[in-house]
Amino acid sequence: MNNKNIQLNKEGRLRHFLDIEGIKRQLLVEILDAAESFSSVEAQRVKKVPLLRGKTIVNLFFEPSTRTRNTFELAAKRLSADTLNVNISASATSKGESLLDMLHNLEAMHCDMFVVRHAQSGAAHFIAQHVAPHISVINAGDGSHAHPTQAMLDMFTIRRHKQAFADLKVAIVGDILHSRVARSQIHALTTLGVTEVRVIGPKTLIPDISTALGVHVYHDMWEGLREVDVVIMLRLQKERMTGALLPSEHEYYKLYGLTPEKLAVAKEDAIVMHPGPINRGVEISSEVADGPQSVILEQVSNGIAVRMAVMSILMGQSFSSDGEAGP
Amino acid sequence: MNNKNIQLNKEGRLRHFLDIEGIKRQLLVEILDAAESFSSVEAQRVKKVPLLRGKTIVNLFFEPSTRTRNTFELAAKRLSADTLNVNISASATSKGESLLDMLHNLEAMHCDMFVVRHAQSGAAHFIAQHVAPHISVINAGDGSHAHPTQAMLDMFTIRRHKQAFADLKVAIVGDILHSRVARSQIHALTTLGVTEVRVIGPKTLIPDISTALGVHVYHDMWEGLREVDVVIMLRLQKERMTGALLPSEHEYYKLYGLTPEKLAVAKEDAIVMHPGPINRGVEISSEVADGPQSVILEQVSNGIAVRMAVMSILMGQSFSSDGEAGP
Amino acid sequence: MNNKNIQLNKEGRLRHFLDIEGIKRQLLVEILDAAESFSSVEAQRVKKVPLLRGKTIVNLFFEPSTRTRNTFELAAKRLSADTLNVNISASATSKGESLLDMLHNLEAMHCDMFVVRHAQSGAAHFIAQHVAPHISVINAGDGSHAHPTQAMLDMFTIRRHKQAFADLKVAIVGDILHSRVARSQIHALTTLGVTEVRVIGPKTLIPDISTALGVHVYHDMWEGLREVDVVIMLRLQKERMTGALLPSEHEYYKLYGLTPEKLAVAKEDAIVMHPGPINRGVEISSEVADGPQSVILEQVSNGIAVRMAVMSILMGQSFSSDGEAGP
Repeated sequence: MNNKNIQLNKEGRLRHFLDIEGIKRQLLVEILDAAESFSSVEAQRVKKVPLLRGKTIVNLFFEPSTRTRNTFELAAKRLSADTLNVNISASATSKGESLLDMLHNLEAMHCDMFVVRHAQSGAAHFIAQHVAPHISVINAGDGSHAHPTQAMLDMFTIRRHKQAFADLKVAIVGDILHSRVARSQIHALTTLGVTEVRVIGPKTLIPDISTALGVHVYHDMWEGLREVDVVIMLRLQKERMTGALLPSEHEYYKLYGLTPEKLAVAKEDAIVMHPGPINRGVEISSEVADGPQSVILEQVSNGIAVRMAVMSILMGQSFSSDGEAGP
Repeated sequence: MNNKNIQLNKEGRLRHFLDIEGIKRQLLVEILDAAESFSSVEAQRVKKVPLLRGKTIVNLFFEPSTRTRNTFELAAKRLSADTLNVNISASATSKGESLLDMLHNLEAMHCDMFVVRHAQSGAAHFIAQHVAPHISVINAGDGSHAHPTQAMLDMFTIRRHKQAFADLKVAIVGDILHSRVARSQIHALTTLGVTEVRVIGPKTLIPDISTALGVHVYHDMWEGLREVDVVIMLRLQKERMTGALLPSEHEYYKLYGLTPEKLAVAKEDAIVMHPGPINRGVEISSEVADGPQSVILEQVSNGIAVRMAVMSILMGQSFSSDGEAGP
Repeated sequence: MNNKNIQLNKEGRLRHFLDIEGIKRQLLVEILDAAESFSSVEAQRVKKVPLLRGKTIVNLFFEPSTRTRNTFELAAKRLSADTLNVNISASATSKGESLLDMLHNLEAMHCDMFVVRHAQSGAAHFIAQHVAPHISVINAGDGSHAHPTQAMLDMFTIRRHKQAFADLKVAIVGDILHSRVARSQIHALTTLGVTEVRVIGPKTLIPDISTALGVHVYHDMWEGLREVDVVIMLRLQKERMTGALLPSEHEYYKLYGLTPEKLAVAKEDAIVMHPGPINRGVEISSEVADGPQSVILEQVSNGIAVRMAVMSILMGQSFSSDGEAGP
């Protein structure tokens, strides 16, 4: 997918946010810096800024996800935007034609932004290619392709704890093959210049192109976690268990579940991340999930600030932490 | 239904908006003029006015319709009203008694306006007859009876393109018999004084009273479209296909589908309208729907402005385009 | 359940509102006084105050209830808070563990208040025991345990009509055994110091502990209503009819349905209350429900004001009727 052009406007600024791939480091840093400002807003008594007042943000969820929708809805409301939730069953849009008609209708209602989640890879790109010039699209997860705001909130969380990306070794553990989160994380980490990205998992769940992406592949978790600064666990989709791709839940936990013992192999100050919701005792032990190295709930908080940042940047609204909106 | 009195307050101003029938030309023009002001608001960067701040507007949808509900919800939010969506399955209100109890409860919660959609003709009238004096009711479609805000957005769209109604010939094509949209359009066009209203469709889908309403009936679309200024296509309810009322979809398209060839019979600058959602290749060809004479998406935009106009007029709030609310 | 501590903060002010039991009279009166102020706001043209602007209130409904959720949602919106509706099917939270993870996620999103309804007694307490220090919890009904905001709106309604609680005799009629409403009402009436609380119903529906709570038990409605100032009818859960607990609907109405004849036994100026929705002809006759002594719809109005009061007190925001927010 040629997303290099479609995500940027003529001035080279972000218009859509569909995929980390093809976005320059400077634009990613801009998102992280903006999120820093919004993070302080979040901590205030009145958690609201009028930056997107009068804008209408539509949650276009073709795949159900209360959790992700809530974070986008809260981010929009804290920017004072109006929100519209449109849940579409797959059946109603089986024809691409009627999907486009629906989009054009929402455009005609003077909506400003579509937050799209879809089970098919490429859906957000398809929509971005067909919307009117005044509309921005955010990919909130498309198939196994990308989930860029999740990756950016992970980067934000890492930066808060570790400062310079250049010095870091980061391990991503689990079902890399099917994970849109992992794919976006790898692109973000690489663009931001970490020393080393490792992926850890059984052979059946590591895509062949991994080495081409510049990551190091490990099938032994004890080896893979050695001396890393950041451990990113992925959620195990239990439905994959039934296929031949995975051993039993018990066996998986023994090999790839993050326990205090395995975590001890990483650097002493390593942080543990997870996009949630977590499967306790499947990919992570409660001891680790609730332990001192876990930053899992911080990720959730940062998710609001990062989504506020992306939304306001796409709408051309900057924000400084003294509470004043830019031009 | 005697709606002449119930829609108006003692001063002769609109209190409810249930049906075009029985509303004087001057009040319809007032809606169109107000919509003109809101249309410019819609084009602004901040699409919001504080006219209905502190008012609560309830979407009472007894019949599911995401699309129509969205337009009312957006209109309400852009007037700064609070909205409450109440979706009621038919079963829960099988007894008229409990419906009234529910209405009185919403009234007691100090709600200000009910936007009602119901599968039964007369439902909005029934509700308007029973609400407290401070409540206004908008009919968002009742059975095959009326859909007055749809008709008014159509009138608004026509006026924007054609100015004087007095000079116009307008054709409405399709299932006139079952269409609340057509019924409201005919009353609006007649009240606004167009030269001629034509209805076009198979005999089974044209009600007998058509001539009584002052319209001209055509069963041959080529004849009916001749020299008209405006072509209004209706949505074909595919479920009617199964009955004896309609020929096959293919046959219907051949006889009454709007193609470039048939459209060529109308005036050169004729506009093409459709209340949406469109059935491409059933009642209209994609070439026409997406062509230069189509104003279908403009209708959607105008729908927000017209609904803002109706809501603010019912609430006794006027608005001038310089952004100031009236008394 | 030891709720004495958990509902109050160190300064002895309300932090959660879970149960009337264990709350001192002075705090109940504070709620009633605050509700008085909001009641005048409700009557204004613009029914909104900015007291909770920037706060996020989550409706956590594990048990479906459009009606109760609407009143909390309206109360929150009229305080200018942002609202998030989270409907959770029982199945999704069958494990207590995942419920807590969900709560911690909502906390991490910087939500400020959870309004909880749950089919299990004690659910709101459980949640209150586990939330972060900045979160307040309101119990919107838990099993057969408590429904404190309902009880407070009832007290507010009584005070508006009867002034001094000390002089009153109050009868509660119906299924006392299963009623969270009755339980909270009894605690509130007792704390506010009414002369006498009576419960009236068949033996199968009066809990054994009633006399321990200081109430007088009557199985004969004619006797129980004699000379009371307030009659509170409970809603009959028709599903209980199928068990052995109740006679037929017809029989029940004959014995415990409130008719004009039975009501005549109470004081001449007695008021009739019901938490709604009412079953006409089951626990109450239409003649009484719609009659001059009924204050049922006033209760609904008062419900918004009382919920605004509780929400703003929990958030530490006082309000005086001149429209100014306190410190």
